[in-house]
Amino acid sequence: MKPPYYAVLFSNCLRNQDDVFYQNLSQNLRAQAEKQPGYIGLESYRNPDGKGITISYWENLEAVARWKKHSEHLVAQQYGREKAYSQYSVRVCEVTREHHFSNP
Amino acid sequence: MKPPYYAVLFSNCLRNQDDVFYQNLSQNLRAQAEKQPGYIGLESYRNPDGKGITISYWENLEAVARWKKHSEHLVAQQYGREKAYSQYSVRVCEVTREHHFSNP
Repeated sequence: MKPPYYAVLFSNCLRNQDDVFYQNLSQNLRAQAEKQPGYIGLESYRNPDGKGITISYWENLEAVARWKKHSEHLVAQQYGREKAYSQYSVRVCEVTREHHFSNP
Repeated sequence: MKPPYYAVLFSNCLRNQDDVFYQNLSQNLRAQAEKQPGYIGLESYRNPDGKGITISYWENLEAVARWKKHSEHLVAQQYGREKAYSQYSVRVCEVTREHHFSNP
């Protein structure tokens, strides 16, 4: 995918890393995201202290807005606020430039 | 910091997580970044499999360009390509919108 495209940076701090309900919710949500029109990709990382980030990439802002209001995503957002996260930040970005390196 | 500002997404896969030279280099580099004009902040995460991301935030694209060419950063970039990483991606983004949540 050539820029410009869009990234949603979801930085968060998980209350309980052994929350099986959360793990299932995340897994299902990821599968749903992958099916959305305009979806490009997703990467997700978490440190041992519970802080992590999920970045999803989208072709346009319409796709970002649609995913924000997706029914299963709304349920997950509520669970996130009420149970899963002590805090989070969401940043919507336009990716304007990129390069990739791979070691031979 | 209110948007718009800029984010550099550095996704990478570390060859050897026990590379002490890399760990020192990263720590020094982070201290250098924090001193640069236009620096806003930095977040960094790594999964147990060695895949991780560092995101640095900057006030403007001039600051991004200056940091890219900073002498110690250039040394680190070379070590990254030659030794530390099996692959990486760099994405430069404009942050256009954000919101934050904190649980009481």
